[in-house]
Amino acid sequence: MSKTKVTDALNYYHQNQSEFLGELFDFLRIPSISTSEINQEDVQKAAVFLQRKLTEIGFEKVKVCSTLMHPIIYAEKIVDPQKPTILIYGHYDVQPPDPLSEWNTPPFEPKIESEYLLARGASDMKGQIWAAISALQSILQTGELSANIKFLIEGEEEIGSPSLDPFLMENKALLTCDMILNPDGSMLAPDKPTIIYALRGMAYFELRVYGPSADLHSGTFGGVVDNPANVLCRLIGGMHDEFGRVTLPGFYNGVRSISPQESAELSKIGMDADAYKALTGVPALGGEAGFQPIERIGARPTLDVNGLYAGYVEEGAKTIIPAYAMAKISSRLVPDQDPENIEESLKQYLKENAPDTVRWELEMLSGATAYIAEAEAPGVSSFINALEQTWGKPPIRKREGGSIPVATSMKNILGVDSIITGFGLPDDQIHSPNERMHLPTHYKGVEALIRFFCGF
Amino acid sequence: MSKTKVTDALNYYHQNQSEFLGELFDFLRIPSISTSEINQEDVQKAAVFLQRKLTEIGFEKVKVCSTLMHPIIYAEKIVDPQKPTILIYGHYDVQPPDPLSEWNTPPFEPKIESEYLLARGASDMKGQIWAAISALQSILQTGELSANIKFLIEGEEEIGSPSLDPFLMENKALLTCDMILNPDGSMLAPDKPTIIYALRGMAYFELRVYGPSADLHSGTFGGVVDNPANVLCRLIGGMHDEFGRVTLPGFYNGVRSISPQESAELSKIGMDADAYKALTGVPALGGEAGFQPIERIGARPTLDVNGLYAGYVEEGAKTIIPAYAMAKISSRLVPDQDPENIEESLKQYLKENAPDTVRWELEMLSGATAYIAEAEAPGVSSFINALEQTWGKPPIRKREGGSIPVATSMKNILGVDSIITGFGLPDDQIHSPNERMHLPTHYKGVEALIRFFCGF
Repeated sequence: MSKTKVTDALNYYHQNQSEFLGELFDFLRIPSISTSEINQEDVQKAAVFLQRKLTEIGFEKVKVCSTLMHPIIYAEKIVDPQKPTILIYGHYDVQPPDPLSEWNTPPFEPKIESEYLLARGASDMKGQIWAAISALQSILQTGELSANIKFLIEGEEEIGSPSLDPFLMENKALLTCDMILNPDGSMLAPDKPTIIYALRGMAYFELRVYGPSADLHSGTFGGVVDNPANVLCRLIGGMHDEFGRVTLPGFYNGVRSISPQESAELSKIGMDADAYKALTGVPALGGEAGFQPIERIGARPTLDVNGLYAGYVEEGAKTIIPAYAMAKISSRLVPDQDPENIEESLKQYLKENAPDTVRWELEMLSGATAYIAEAEAPGVSSFINALEQTWGKPPIRKREGGSIPVATSMKNILGVDSIITGFGLPDDQIHSPNERMHLPTHYKGVEALIRFFCGF
Repeated sequence: MSKTKVTDALNYYHQNQSEFLGELFDFLRIPSISTSEINQEDVQKAAVFLQRKLTEIGFEKVKVCSTLMHPIIYAEKIVDPQKPTILIYGHYDVQPPDPLSEWNTPPFEPKIESEYLLARGASDMKGQIWAAISALQSILQTGELSANIKFLIEGEEEIGSPSLDPFLMENKALLTCDMILNPDGSMLAPDKPTIIYALRGMAYFELRVYGPSADLHSGTFGGVVDNPANVLCRLIGGMHDEFGRVTLPGFYNGVRSISPQESAELSKIGMDADAYKALTGVPALGGEAGFQPIERIGARPTLDVNGLYAGYVEEGAKTIIPAYAMAKISSRLVPDQDPENIEESLKQYLKENAPDTVRWELEMLSGATAYIAEAEAPGVSSFINALEQTWGKPPIRKREGGSIPVATSMKNILGVDSIITGFGLPDDQIHSPNERMHLPTHYKGVEALIRFFCGF
């Protein structure tokens, strides 16, 4: 790559860092919560915001493609058909901010505190999108691209990307590319640049247990009516055994075992029990017996309650037997589990264990299979160089516990593996109150991306 | 008793029924929710409303006695120290109306639909207080009382009556009486006037299970962190065995067994499984094996979840491991269980079963022992006559599943058993959305009370 070209771009970025940050603030102020009915217009606003910015920095064919729900942004800059084409994936939607009361600063009023930028979406993943845009603008303002770039930025990632697969299938030609950059992953630590070669899938359910036709007085009827909240707890309580293994029939079907070599590699990363205790603040770790923490997160499936509701939850006491009880339950899947099989397995468990004193309903809200790069994804070597030049050390290669269904979809539909990376950190509190982004790491990330884009 | 006197009072009541109902409407419009912070002034308003009414119909020494929380109303009408004195108990506070969305009419805008008066507190127990006031006003407007009457009406019954015992102890002399009428009970059916000789006690708890210091991304950390919601469910799920028996250590200590005679008497009442299924709308009954429904409600203790909360409970999906999970759990107690022992027993269970991966906190919100009239309470025979004359049949005598801790307090502190009755019905939806009162039964109740008060 041309040294001067990189240096010019880096200089441009450093000279305009505060402007880039200011624009990111505007982006973060838009509460583009894809799951929330009342924020539909904000999601649209975020899409238009990106459309304007990409056009402004010289991208072409910039389109806000409407879907059944939230639009997908497409943009491209083709400099030379002979050069490789990089497809950059991102999502501009964010998780809901609640519980609002636990935020130290308003989630959609970005604020800088010491080395951190605080806001919902700062790390997941508006900040990551902005790193790519900052890098490309810096190159375009100081020279020319040495690779063709295409952008695909969706607005439904936090709700399971329902529109993405149809869009990929309808636009195969448009999305033709040699490599895919997906910065929706994260790093292990500020001094540990990371490339992810495997991701977990997901199956998300809402389970409702119905008892009496209305809330009942727990004195007048307590003793003859089976309490739906007690029943729901009993059912959920039975979904794990004493070894932390999931008991749903057939749940582990298709789970690939971890090779001794990979197990050894993963243990080198150094994320041990103490590291996770420090990150999460729990008195002791839980999870499946017989696997090291990093394996339980990356290579083993889970089943977690994400939400519970029944009866009276305000201050004080209300003596009722609730008419129904609800749980949001999701499972993180690994290769080669299948969400539909997990749904079947959960249904089977409920059929076998739910008493005839209640009715139950199970709805699958979203599902996606796990992802694993069979070989080295195209472009990985160039990306490793860029990271190495920026951090002065080779990146760590690991499995990620989160789900990036799009990587699977792109592999299946476009036939290209993804370079899954990102410059977020494990303590960024993504999906939680007080989400933040570590600015020094973000700046380094932009530098690495400049080097990567210039490396062709 | 003088026939004409009763007839005059009954006529007066029938002539002025709509006025009495109109005033009850005003009483019901006051949202006197004792547990709710924002309704403190409304509770006060309800107290003042009663003070004015009791003064208006000729009661003396009418006092709004302030307590640490909600005031207690005292009033008396002493006609002749030689005559027996009846202490009438009532409570003017009501349960919270939520879930509001499930009400067909606004809870604090009383409305008559066919034979029912719909409003929060209509049956529990503003309507019952109004029945007593209507009866006494009808007598006082047409003649003179043949017994001395004292009123004690509190505003904290729905939150466990914290101020009642201190008030009883400080005012023993003032509250001296020969019999106590407590109309906070209910009837089995419109054609089944009922007197209750036993009530269940209560122990109400809030249990909180704490895991990570903040909500976590269920992908990034799922597999190494024990989920507090899963743990709470596992703990609650284990609180009953397969026979519906509570597993907390020592939970059944002190529970009196039911004699074959009483069991036979109770079975005559005819409240079988089908009756309860019809009342509650459940597909099948639950509860403790080996006891008939009426025994499980009146003579056996229970443990019910009254509320459950954790994580994300709005529409859609949020993939978090919640930082904490909460349950409101209450136990209905029978003679001779003790709330403090139940708290110990629950604590013991949690110590033995909660994993070291979480922290937990248990708070007891209220506690009261059960009540059983050892012999026939004073005044019961006169009350039976009044019911028999009104319904043309003798009343049913039964155990009640609900808790009226005041009966226990009055027995212990004033040394007088209570006549526990009331003119509410099992399908009045008390403590639930769409609480209602059956007007024909209410009217009959007033007639019976007129006959009772004139029977000395």
